[in-house]
Order: sequence, then structure tokens, then C-alpha cells
Amino acid sequence: MKQVRVGIINATGYIGMELARLLQRHPRVILSSITGRSAIGQKLGEVLPHLADIELVIQPHLGDVDLVFSALPHKSSAEALLPALEQGIKVVDTSADFRLKNAEDYQKWYEFTHPGPQFLEEAVYGLVELNRTDIASARLVANPGCYPTGALLALAPAVKEGLIEPDIVIDSKSGVSGAGRTLSLNTHFSEANENVNAYALEGHRHLPEIVQELGKLNPGLSFSVTFVPHLVPMNRGILTSCYAKLTAMKGTGDKAKERLMKLYAEFYRDEPFVKVLTVPPRTKQTWGTNLCLIHPTIDLRTGRLIAISCIDNLMKGGAGQAVQNMNLMLGFPESMGLEGAAIYP
Amino acid sequence: MKQVRVGIINATGYIGMELARLLQRHPRVILSSITGRSAIGQKLGEVLPHLADIELVIQPHLGDVDLVFSALPHKSSAEALLPALEQGIKVVDTSADFRLKNAEDYQKWYEFTHPGPQFLEEAVYGLVELNRTDIASARLVANPGCYPTGALLALAPAVKEGLIEPDIVIDSKSGVSGAGRTLSLNTHFSEANENVNAYALEGHRHLPEIVQELGKLNPGLSFSVTFVPHLVPMNRGILTSCYAKLTAMKGTGDKAKERLMKLYAEFYRDEPFVKVLTVPPRTKQTWGTNLCLIHPTIDLRTGRLIAISCIDNLMKGGAGQAVQNMNLMLGFPESMGLEGAAIYP
Amino acid sequence: MKQVRVGIINATGYIGMELARLLQRHPRVILSSITGRSAIGQKLGEVLPHLADIELVIQPHLGDVDLVFSALPHKSSAEALLPALEQGIKVVDTSADFRLKNAEDYQKWYEFTHPGPQFLEEAVYGLVELNRTDIASARLVANPGCYPTGALLALAPAVKEGLIEPDIVIDSKSGVSGAGRTLSLNTHFSEANENVNAYALEGHRHLPEIVQELGKLNPGLSFSVTFVPHLVPMNRGILTSCYAKLTAMKGTGDKAKERLMKLYAEFYRDEPFVKVLTVPPRTKQTWGTNLCLIHPTIDLRTGRLIAISCIDNLMKGGAGQAVQNMNLMLGFPESMGLEGAAIYP
Amino acid sequence: MKQVRVGIINATGYIGMELARLLQRHPRVILSSITGRSAIGQKLGEVLPHLADIELVIQPHLGDVDLVFSALPHKSSAEALLPALEQGIKVVDTSADFRLKNAEDYQKWYEFTHPGPQFLEEAVYGLVELNRTDIASARLVANPGCYPTGALLALAPAVKEGLIEPDIVIDSKSGVSGAGRTLSLNTHFSEANENVNAYALEGHRHLPEIVQELGKLNPGLSFSVTFVPHLVPMNRGILTSCYAKLTAMKGTGDKAKERLMKLYAEFYRDEPFVKVLTVPPRTKQTWGTNLCLIHPTIDLRTGRLIAISCIDNLMKGGAGQAVQNMNLMLGFPESMGLEGAAIYP
Repeated sequence: MKQVRVGIINATGYIGMELARLLQRHPRVILSSITGRSAIGQKLGEVLPHLADIELVIQPHLGDVDLVFSALPHKSSAEALLPALEQGIKVVDTSADFRLKNAEDYQKWYEFTHPGPQFLEEAVYGLVELNRTDIASARLVANPGCYPTGALLALAPAVKEGLIEPDIVIDSKSGVSGAGRTLSLNTHFSEANENVNAYALEGHRHLPEIVQELGKLNPGLSFSVTFVPHLVPMNRGILTSCYAKLTAMKGTGDKAKERLMKLYAEFYRDEPFVKVLTVPPRTKQTWGTNLCLIHPTIDLRTGRLIAISCIDNLMKGGAGQAVQNMNLMLGFPESMGLEGAAIYP
Repeated sequence: MKQVRVGIINATGYIGMELARLLQRHPRVILSSITGRSAIGQKLGEVLPHLADIELVIQPHLGDVDLVFSALPHKSSAEALLPALEQGIKVVDTSADFRLKNAEDYQKWYEFTHPGPQFLEEAVYGLVELNRTDIASARLVANPGCYPTGALLALAPAVKEGLIEPDIVIDSKSGVSGAGRTLSLNTHFSEANENVNAYALEGHRHLPEIVQELGKLNPGLSFSVTFVPHLVPMNRGILTSCYAKLTAMKGTGDKAKERLMKLYAEFYRDEPFVKVLTVPPRTKQTWGTNLCLIHPTIDLRTGRLIAISCIDNLMKGGAGQAVQNMNLMLGFPESMGLEGAAIYP
Repeated sequence: MKQVRVGIINATGYIGMELARLLQRHPRVILSSITGRSAIGQKLGEVLPHLADIELVIQPHLGDVDLVFSALPHKSSAEALLPALEQGIKVVDTSADFRLKNAEDYQKWYEFTHPGPQFLEEAVYGLVELNRTDIASARLVANPGCYPTGALLALAPAVKEGLIEPDIVIDSKSGVSGAGRTLSLNTHFSEANENVNAYALEGHRHLPEIVQELGKLNPGLSFSVTFVPHLVPMNRGILTSCYAKLTAMKGTGDKAKERLMKLYAEFYRDEPFVKVLTVPPRTKQTWGTNLCLIHPTIDLRTGRLIAISCIDNLMKGGAGQAVQNMNLMLGFPESMGLEGAAIYP
Repeated sequence: MKQVRVGIINATGYIGMELARLLQRHPRVILSSITGRSAIGQKLGEVLPHLADIELVIQPHLGDVDLVFSALPHKSSAEALLPALEQGIKVVDTSADFRLKNAEDYQKWYEFTHPGPQFLEEAVYGLVELNRTDIASARLVANPGCYPTGALLALAPAVKEGLIEPDIVIDSKSGVSGAGRTLSLNTHFSEANENVNAYALEGHRHLPEIVQELGKLNPGLSFSVTFVPHLVPMNRGILTSCYAKLTAMKGTGDKAKERLMKLYAEFYRDEPFVKVLTVPPRTKQTWGTNLCLIHPTIDLRTGRLIAISCIDNLMKGGAGQAVQNMNLMLGFPESMGLEGAAIYP
């Protein structure tokens, strides 16, 4: 079977190295070109000993490929992808640069002028469970942020079915790898260990993305979302707790909970990477996998939906979802290269 | 200066051993009697090597004391305290057994028939910042739960001043020591480490306590509270994130935030153990201390109060607050034996 | 291609669940029967949510299989395996029960009378890198202990070539999953976290196994080994530091180091799962893999060999090595089902 | 009682902030002047929220003090201390700059030319348990390194009494705070967490200090020491495992172990901060204290001493020991400001 040549822009960050790990073993892909922001000229396997089997040399510029992943931070990513976009090469961007439809939002939330606003309309938001068809025919896919992935999958059935008021609290708890490989005092071991904190209370950059995609699910509603991320002392995993008043299914006891569970189970029935659980999930149950585990329930005292989701932020929240998008874009089986249970404990 | 004889019922659990650590060095107290559920006849310092300097032998029954702390679990605690209560000895109970005013709530939430309902009315809820005067003259103080301590201190100024709607989401993140020293799979290292989960979604036992005390702060309101606790992989600390719609202070931008901050700072102005911060606190900043750090702010997009608090669950959320209560009950300076900054990092 | 029916005795412990995870995806194996010490009658995927895809029901007794893994503790394992051994079924035992050649050693080190001493001679010690040929034709393989795996692989080239005196210090640091899934205060999260300790100073049960296998490598020598294991606060991984005086290669500076490195690299040249590194390895570089990473060097000031090795204690130190043994015993490619790089970070 | 004015050079690193925490509550000291390498002009309590009660402003230069601690790294520390030394101010240096007697060793091990070699002879090595008298009359005390503190206290009784051969293996396991507050990839949370590694195999800078002080304990011997430090994923604590062949006390079974234990207990009988234990210690038992816990035993199979010690690397291995030295130098009770049991768990 013909293999496709794939490249990674910036393979030395946490998302980039996960992409390399996954693509190296993907049966239909040849990982043929990688770039980095450092270590140019070294073999990837020398820089990252756990990838010792990858002989590829880190290049300053991408070689000839059929599809490219970018694992650069926002702004740099769009800049680096422009040549590929102009050449018509297929692109999966794991940065935020093609997620928002409104170019001005980049000014407002990310503080830069978007260098390629002409591509924003074409870009498809790569949350496969909500946009499978569009992704399959897309040329440019914007891989969702880690927090939005967990939040949107937890909320989608309720929002789509109009079960909740559009006034939502999203409280997320993320492992530290979500902050990337760039050094900072907040992610210094002695500071982050044995510690929990909330951050970005004035508005995290993933908020506009969440609101934009909720709006698509139920265009009649005007969403008012409070999103507060927290850093917890573990490497991987995001647990997202969503709270919203129910408009339907209220006050009818355990039967309402069952109906809710059924509705969620039905919504995700054929999804290979979403499991609806009758008990609250734990982040570690997704470690190293592309899974999203969801537990929806009702706080009967208050008539409030509680929806909890867990993902591995570097997999379903990053590299895994990017490969899932690639599989769709190239017509491969959706789970190819993403098989295998969580490594536990 | 005369010293007071103090005893601890069940000194070998996490709250009990913290009480022993604090009381051993309290200048006005002689720790004179300790009991345990195991290790009867052994010296405490042999069973718990970090308390090697405490020569006291663990007894099956309490000796003569002027004040007793109970660090037993609910039900056992009330049972063990009845003799002391009947003899008129001063009591600080760190279990839930005298926190709720309504005896039937014990049946409903804790599944036992309260053995001493006649003491429920007399018992004072030992959240010093809200009940200082009553505690000072109390004979029986019910030390607050760890979660309610963090939640009530974060919400009290806003509730008391009527700033928020009584429809509140409380999302708490606790270190594992909150689950105590009794073994369980959930607190087995390999299971709890690198993991986060929500639990007690059907209603945690600390909920009625939170609702009861919120009601006292603003008796005109009917509170609808969703409380979801989460377990995070660290030993100590609770970070509580509270969310509620503002009824006042809405929509006026940064000035509203400043007024909110001022109101909180004023509310806790003379408190030795509460600090109102202009930035989000981190649990580790309270490690080993009796402090509660609070950051109140407004999500201007949604008109919602966000109030974040941090405590050390075994100190302000347990043994430290119990000693603070004892200090008040015995007329000692409130901070005696509770001095010292957090051990960081 | 014909698939082989494989069973796991006790699939609910940490080694057992890793075996299930690996075998479920092994292309030549049908995982057809599992037993457990608890949860009989439940699906494995219900008891262990990360294995949700495994539909097998936990049985009290093993069904018909072509090869069986035992993941029971010592003594129970031999007892449970006797029927299979008597029927001539192929066996990989991950317990210690067939590792020692001398039946009396079980009395001395494990305090039980071996129920099947007649099988001890036949049993092959399953350290593939040292016993590949014997394993390939074996019917009964004793999978090595986690500590011996790391220690023997680190020392084998030096011992075999007679480079060191037979007086060796082995200082090992293990993640907590090595202590298994059975609850204990030592592995309670709040006790094990933020803590390191040495244990079994009077002689760990893995010591006789280490000495026995070192003796086979260089039968002329009489080994005097001090082995001290330590528990460190992480889930997986063993780092082993070995120290011994060099008899050869002494005192010749960096060239001696290079010759040592070359000798090790040569020794393990064709091994799929051993990598000799020029820098010290980190346990996390083996997370989830069957790799053993080794760094040999010389302390030139003292003429001492320092050999450091890292493994994942549940993989190369347990389930992974057991599958490697099965592959050899059944004539499958040695790496089948064990591919893939470490999940990092 | 008259209070002494004390200053800290570089109060914003981990040792410096621990010094500030301890000195702030020391009854005979006024912390009157602090400097920093950053945040000049800010209050210490603003930069380090856990020290919110310290109102002192971080200055570029030290004010008038009676005694000064330096918590700068090597080289910078000697340079910064020269003015104080020339003015005759008492000094406790927590860097390595006055630990080694031979100025050339600074060139060899630390790669700089010592700016004040004339002070090396005068400097007293501040390991109180071995040098109490000299420290009491010293003007300049070199606070020991964290690793040497644990290793020397574990070995001192055996070396002094000539029980062991001078050929010693020291294998140390340190928490990450030992690497300081300066950012590096090795101490980035996602890299250091769930990971153990050996480092400095070519010779750690603490080695010459260990050898120098062992030599003073038993000047007749020529020491050959292999020292290998390891990084483990916790904030605080060093566990040191020492191994050496016994020359005496060999081969006489449990009685030999008892005699060894007695000898150690006698050696440290009157020490307020050293406890000799009959069971292996755990690092967490020293958390936040100035204690060193030691367990000496014999590997009877090999005739080898195993001595295990635990300290809190920032306390007995840093700031705590520095305050202990100050207490001696100023004639205060040795334990003043260092009281209190470990915070556990």
C-alpha cells in the first residue's frame, strides 16, 4: 500500500514529539521531514532519547511532503505554514492560528495580526466527533485546543439537544505538560509539585474557541461561558467539570439521570474515541490514548447538569487528535496508529 | 503561667497527629492524654517517628483533661465524646458529629442515629472568622469540615453583603491526605498518583454543612448549591473555586473588581489567618500553616463572581483550626502555637 | 495465521493487567481465559476501566489454553500452575516460584515448602538476553524479578568478561507499582508521596536470584553482593546503580571508559530491547516499553565500575519480558506486540 | 534581651528564603537587611507570597549587620562576602566557597580562581556535630553542602572508630529543590516528574568536600570514595546510602549489629539534631526540620556496613544548619529557632 510522506514543523516540543512517536509507527505514513527551533542538524533520536529509533535529522526547513503538521506556538505557526498553504499541501495545525473564524480575534486574544486571514474561512475545526464530514474533505484543519476538546465533548450532546441554559461554568484541571516544554517558574518542578492553582481568571485564550464552537452546535443561543483552568501536579491529563442549569430533564429523579445518560450514549454511539461512562472517569484511564471519557449526571437538588470529561492533553488534546484528523483527510481508517489501551497505573 | 491539660481522642490519624504536633509545642498546654484505635500501649513517638519527642503512651481511654479534641470519624466521635460532654469538659470535635443542627440530617447524610442529639443546639460551628464571639464562650465546638472551611471563607463576604444570587457552584480540589490514613484503592499511591477525578457527584457529606452556614450568613436567601470535590495528586491543600452570578457590582469593568477586592479586604481586615490577595493563590503557599488565602474577582463577560481560596486541609481545614478554636475557648491569644510561615517549596 | 490461545492467572493485579493490555493487541494471540482473586464473574473491562475493550469474564478457573501466564504472588503461583504443568501446557510464571534452582531456598527466603520442586530443574530463567536459546525450547519459563532484571543486565558484560571483582554493591530505586496492588501503609499515597526510603536491609528476596544468575555468568567466581532496594515516589521505573572494583581496564583514563562502553555495546549489539547509552539514562525513557537502557562508566579516582540501568518495572521488569519470553517459546518474532516508543513526558 | 542584626545575601533562592523564614521567627535575631539578584526594590513578601509577613525591601547592597548569611552560588558568594570579611563581620556562607582548604581545588572542581584564598584557613567547616568547638569561636563558617552533610553524619562514627575500610560507595537520592530555583530542562516539572536519574558520574563537586572531611576524622587513612547523586521526584529530602567493608565487627551476627547501633547511638548521644534509629528512616520524617536520621546496619552476608541517613536538604542540608551554626557563633542555645516536629504527611 502506498505510503504518504508526512512532515512535522517543530518536532522537539511536547506535541511535536508525540506526533513523531505516533507517526513513526503509523502503517500508511513515512515520517520524512522534521524541523525544530533548536538542535538543527542533530538526529531527533539523539535530542530525545525515548525516540532513539527515529534517525531523521532536524532540518531548518521542511522538505517535500504530502501533509504537514505544525507544532509551533501561535503566530509562528501561521507564518511557517503559509508556504505550504500556498502550495496546496495538506495541513494540520496544532496551534490556535486557524481555529478562530474572525481574524480580529487574533488581535484581541493573541495580540498579533494574522498573517494569513484568507485561510480562516477554509480552515475546518478539527474536532472529529462534531465535524467529521468537513474534515474528511478539508485541506487545512485547525486542531482544537486541549481545554476546548475536553469541554466541547462534555457539553456537545446537552447543547445540541437544547437541554441546558447557555450560561455555563467550565472548571478544568490540567497536567503540567499542557504548558509545554518552554521553561518557566510556574512549571519548575519545585514550584509546581505539591501545588494547585487557578490561572487566567481574566480570560484564557481557549475561551473564544469554546464559545465559537458551542455557538455552531446551537446557533439559536447566546452563550455566556466562564472558563477557569487549573494546574495540577501531574504530567498528563485534563479533567473538565462543566456546570449548567437544565432547561429540560429537571426534577424527575433517577429516571432523568438515566435519560441523560442514554442521550449521551446515543450521541457518541459510533465514536471510536469517546466513551460515555456511568461513573466519573479518571484522567489516568486515558494516559497515552486518544480517548475522551465522559460522565454526564444531574445534581437533582439544583437541577443542574454536571458533565465531567477526561482526556490525555497531549493525545486527544493534541497529537492524537491531529493524527485522527490526518487519517480522515487521507482516507485512512480513523483509528489507524491510535490503537492500544491506556498504560496504567 | 498555668498550663491546661489537653487530650486527643485518636491521635494516630492524620488530624490527630497534626493536633499532637501543634499541642506538643503550645506554650499554654500540656498534652497529657492520648488515645488511639490501634497501637494501644505504645508510645506515640514509636508509632509515628516524626513525633519521636512525644513520650506519651497511647491509652485505650482518655485520662483527666480540661479540654479534649476528638479526631475520630463521625459516629464514633459522638459516641466517644458523650462521657466528656456529660462531665462538662470542654470539647473540640473535628468530626462532623456536632456540625449539623438537625439530628435527622445525620440519618440522611451520614446514615446513623445521632447518640447525643441534645448537644446539637449547644454546639457552636467553629469557623472562627464567622463565629468568634460564640466560640469564645462555647463549651462544645464543632470544627468545620475541610471543604466547608475553604468554601465558606471564599463566599462569606459576597453572601453576607448580598452581592450574589444564591445559586452557587463550588468546585474543590483536594490533596489526598483529606481522605485520611485508612487504606483504600483510591488512595493507593499507584492509583492516586498522576490522576485527577471528581467524586461524590450525588452529594458529598460536606454539602449540608455548607448550605446550613451560608443560610446563617444571609437568612433571607434560599441557597441552591452544587458542590463537586476532586482528588488531586498531592499530600496537602485544598483549592476551592466558587462561581455565582453577581446581583450587584455587575458590568462596570475593572472598578467593580477593585470594589469587590476592597469589600473582601475589609471583611477580613483584622483576621490573623485570612489574607485577601490580588492574584490567585496556590495551595502550597499555605503548607503547614493555618492560613486561608482568598482571591475574589469578576468574570466581566458573564457578570459572575469567581472566588478562589486555598487552605492546608490538615491545618486550617482540620487541626490548626481546632487549635485556633481552643485558643479562643481558653482565652489564649488566637494565634498561639500557630505561628510560622509556610514551608516552601 | 493461526492464533494461539493464551490465559492469564490473576489478571487484576498490576502485572496481570499489563499482560492483558499487551496480549489483547498481540497479532498472534487470542487472550481466551483469565482468572482473578476477586471480581469473579465480572468483565475485566468493568473492573479495570482502562481495559474497557476486553470483554472477557473473570473466571474462577483457567479454561483451555495453549500457554498460560501466572501473575499470582509466590506460593499461590506454583500451586495454581501445577495442573497446567502436569498437563504439559506451556507456562510463563511471573512469580518467583520457578526462578531458584534449590528448593530449600524457598523455605529460607520465601518461607514456604515448594509444592512442585520436581519442576525447578526444568524451569528456564527467562532473562532473554542471557538465555535466549534455552527459552526458545522451554516449556516452563520463570520470568525474572524486576530488580534482578535491571541488575543482571547492568552487570552481565562486566561479569562475563571478568572485568570486576565479585564483590558488588547494587543500589536500586523503584517506583511504587513494584509493590503491587495490595493495600499497605507504605504504599498509601500520603505516606509514599514526597518520600524515599531504603528497605529490606536484612536481605531482599531478589538477592538469591541475582547471586544465582551472576554465578552462571562466571562460574569461577564466588559472588558477595549487597543489594539495597529503595522506594521512590513515582508509579513506574527502576533505576539500578551497580558498583564494583575493576580488575581490568583500571587507571587508563578516558580510553578505559571508551573500551568499557565498546565492550557493553558489543555485548548487546543485536538485542532489540537493550540499549547501551553514552549518557546516564532516566527511568522515564523506558515508560511503557520493554527497553533496558544501560550506561557503564568508570570512576577513575577509585578504579570502580559504575553501571546504571533503567527499566519499566511492569514491562521489562514484568509483563513485557513475559511476552518477550512467550514470543520466543512460540516461535514468534521476539518484539511482536512490544513495539512502540516510550510515552514521554 | 539584646537582639542581633542579621542579613541575608540573596534571599530569593531556596536556601535564602528558608533562611528568611527561620530568622524572621528567631527570638534573638532581627532580620534587618536582605539582598537579591532580582526584584531589587520590592518587598520580599511580595516576591514570595508565603513570606507575606516580611516587610523588608530587597536591596542591591547589604546594610549594617552583625552577622551575614550568603545564599549566593559559588564564586559570586566569595566575591560578595569579601567586604564583610575585611570588616570583620561574622559570616555563614552556604555556598562552597570556604569549604575546601586548598585554593587550587576551586580551580579544579569549580573552575574559578578563588578571590579570597587568605580566608580559607580561617574558615571552619560548619558540620556542628563534628566541629562544635571550632564553630563556637569562628568568625567565618562554611556551611556544608547538602550531600556531604548526609554522607558525613552517616559515616562519621564508623570512620572515626576505624570500623571500615577507607573504600566507600555513597549513593545519594535528592529531591529536586537541591538543584535550586534557577530554571533548567532537568528540573522542568514534566521532565523531572515520574523520573529518576543518576548524574555527575564523572565526579560531583561535593566529592572533594566529603573526602577532605573524612580525612580529618581519621587522618591515618587514605580514602577512596565513589559518590553518585540521583535526582528523585520530590521537593525536599536527601536519603544517602553508604556502603563500606567492615574491618571490625564482622561476621558475628545480630550481636555485631547491636554493637554497631550502640556505637552510633553513643557517638550522637547528646546531639539535638541527630537521631540514630533501629529502623531505616524516610526522608519525609525530616521535612521542614533540622534533623538527621541515621540507621546503621551490617550486611552479614558480605561483612559490609550499610549506613542510611535522611535530611531535609534545605534545612539540615542548608538553611537550618546555617542557623544552627549562627546560634553557636553568637552563643545562643543551639536549637533556638529550629524547634518543631516534621510536618507529616
